[in-house]
Amino acid sequence: MSKPLEGISVLDLTRVLAGPFCTMLLCDMGANVVKVERPEGGDDSRSFSPFVGDDSAYFMSINRGKKSITLNLKTVEGKKLLERLIERFDVLVENFRPGVFERLGFSAQRLREINPRLIYTCSSGFGHSGPMSHRTAYDLIIQGLSGMMSITGPDENSPTKVGSSIADIFCGTFACIGILAALHSRNLTGKGQKVDVAMLDSMVSVLENAIARYAATGEPPVPIGNRHPSIAPFASFKTLDGIINIAVGNDVLWEKFCKAIGRPEMCDDPKFVNNPARVRNLEELMEILGGELEKRTSDEWLGVFGKLDIPSGKINNIADIFEDEQIRAREMIVEVPHRCGNVKMPGVPIKFSDTPASIAGPAPLLGEHNREVYAGMLGLSDLEMEELKRKGII
Amino acid sequence: MSKPLEGISVLDLTRVLAGPFCTMLLCDMGANVVKVERPEGGDDSRSFSPFVGDDSAYFMSINRGKKSITLNLKTVEGKKLLERLIERFDVLVENFRPGVFERLGFSAQRLREINPRLIYTCSSGFGHSGPMSHRTAYDLIIQGLSGMMSITGPDENSPTKVGSSIADIFCGTFACIGILAALHSRNLTGKGQKVDVAMLDSMVSVLENAIARYAATGEPPVPIGNRHPSIAPFASFKTLDGIINIAVGNDVLWEKFCKAIGRPEMCDDPKFVNNPARVRNLEELMEILGGELEKRTSDEWLGVFGKLDIPSGKINNIADIFEDEQIRAREMIVEVPHRCGNVKMPGVPIKFSDTPASIAGPAPLLGEHNREVYAGMLGLSDLEMEELKRKGII
Repeated sequence: MSKPLEGISVLDLTRVLAGPFCTMLLCDMGANVVKVERPEGGDDSRSFSPFVGDDSAYFMSINRGKKSITLNLKTVEGKKLLERLIERFDVLVENFRPGVFERLGFSAQRLREINPRLIYTCSSGFGHSGPMSHRTAYDLIIQGLSGMMSITGPDENSPTKVGSSIADIFCGTFACIGILAALHSRNLTGKGQKVDVAMLDSMVSVLENAIARYAATGEPPVPIGNRHPSIAPFASFKTLDGIINIAVGNDVLWEKFCKAIGRPEMCDDPKFVNNPARVRNLEELMEILGGELEKRTSDEWLGVFGKLDIPSGKINNIADIFEDEQIRAREMIVEVPHRCGNVKMPGVPIKFSDTPASIAGPAPLLGEHNREVYAGMLGLSDLEMEELKRKGII
Repeated sequence: MSKPLEGISVLDLTRVLAGPFCTMLLCDMGANVVKVERPEGGDDSRSFSPFVGDDSAYFMSINRGKKSITLNLKTVEGKKLLERLIERFDVLVENFRPGVFERLGFSAQRLREINPRLIYTCSSGFGHSGPMSHRTAYDLIIQGLSGMMSITGPDENSPTKVGSSIADIFCGTFACIGILAALHSRNLTGKGQKVDVAMLDSMVSVLENAIARYAATGEPPVPIGNRHPSIAPFASFKTLDGIINIAVGNDVLWEKFCKAIGRPEMCDDPKFVNNPARVRNLEELMEILGGELEKRTSDEWLGVFGKLDIPSGKINNIADIFEDEQIRAREMIVEVPHRCGNVKMPGVPIKFSDTPASIAGPAPLLGEHNREVYAGMLGLSDLEMEELKRKGII
């Protein structure tokens, strides 16, 4: 069976996370992704801990299935080789700081001249316009600037970073959407275009209720821990041996829940009879429920709630998710054979019935596909390749 | 100028957040999205606070630009109308609990019979397979089960929910990618297919370094506040009047940073000379830096660091982002005219040079486009529509 993006070719000049996450998605869906790396050391993330054998587990996970070629873009010959590659690809993705690729000789205009059908996609911290465009960005900085940290955390004095680098990842994900939409558009117009996606824009677009709430009330929301702003009980609770989440989303569930915890009288109590009443009397509610829930273990409670289909669940750690039956059934932790043995990484979250996506193979060694690309695609001879290598160009 | 998805039609049976976020992205990019709502009250999120006038600001934001028709899917005539619509659309998206749409008479097989070119996309908490498939999911429950809460928070005893509902949003975003990839595939094969995306799968796929780290070391990562696991100083710091983020990503920046804070001697100190040393002596480092940084205000420090391009930034709250110059320059907070006045909401994070995406218009009133769709597309007469309305079918 073929994959959904079979036949699409992607020239990948990205490093570290945002861009590589985008091209990973394209690669898992069947695109032919050729990663262009500098000859000296390649993508910085090849040296990021932790390591398995000599290889970065981080790099291996985000770059699975891609091909790697080396190319020194600071040399005239290197730039000429890149031009010849650009002629032959559908998509080019880069995540240089804005201005850098242009100074190397590759403005959006120049790229269009080389290949009018090219989808040119740039991902960056702040985007290719605006007063902050040229500033250096890291995920932490963007999480702070975007407002996401101001609504995450245990209480209003503790703005908290999301544990994974979601500013990078949302940026890569929206870049992927942009590329696919631009491909669709190209089918109609015959023309490529530039797609510009920023980490900061991406994070602002996923603040969800916080923006609507501030726009409607004029009150900036603050971190409220694991509670819901307008539904109760909908929070994390301590049990005898851990913490669990419970989400009593409506009054029907509330009635079931009161019986389940052995407090059936609470659902007739005017203080707790419906959601607005429970939100009004939240502190008292949480104190009573806290007292009940700490009497039994997490597994005991989840067994009781599971039978009644009261939404509830563990706070799994990363070891737990490797053992979780649902996550296993959905093939969301997979093993990919590498030279250092099998490496575990996340699976593909998009399940296509007819053209299933899958991990195409291990991450490439630096320059592993030089021959395939430079000889196979551009027709360079062994001698020419040796010469380029000697000069530090590939 | 046309938009990138001009000509694509989407029949949208989704409610609340994950599905509606997906179809919002498609709509912003030019797809014709027809939202199918139950005649009694429509999408539940029409009643979610906060309100602007009589309308939910939450609903208005996520459903901007879509069309709304009413349809009772529990009636025989309602099902027949849906079949006639399905024949005419490119994409159908639903986020019912797995099994519900099938029990209404619309299995994947049946949908394929009605329209072999249809891209049928389902988004759900746990996906359409596996032992938990039929369980009810809320964002909080999925954030807990996915491991994301176990790596977010101030310390290892405080697993913390991300402030926005990113399990829903990532699910909607991956569903959008799946739809666009399936459209590409359909261009080659002529056939539609089923695309199944789960909130839990989506969250596992964005855990990033946490999975590589656990797989390589066998140690499940824990929340470490706003610090970086292997780079220092890379964290939030208290200033005289607030908190700022600073990301000293390499030793060149470290030298600049030491001078900037008036402690040039620190960069020669063997305890702090390079990143591994700084990580080893993290507590001492953080104490010294904490002492220096609390001497001046956030704005003073950010002025100093900004001039030297040391990555740094405020922890903006939602009020701040409405005033942020970069966010304004990128049009990431936009005003959309509604019957109740202008409503502010996030802009589109994907900037296309030739076929720009944009918000097509306000969110629809319930059933606002019944005539356009039922008369214009299916050819029903006024009399037939009156009759259907009387029977509670539309």
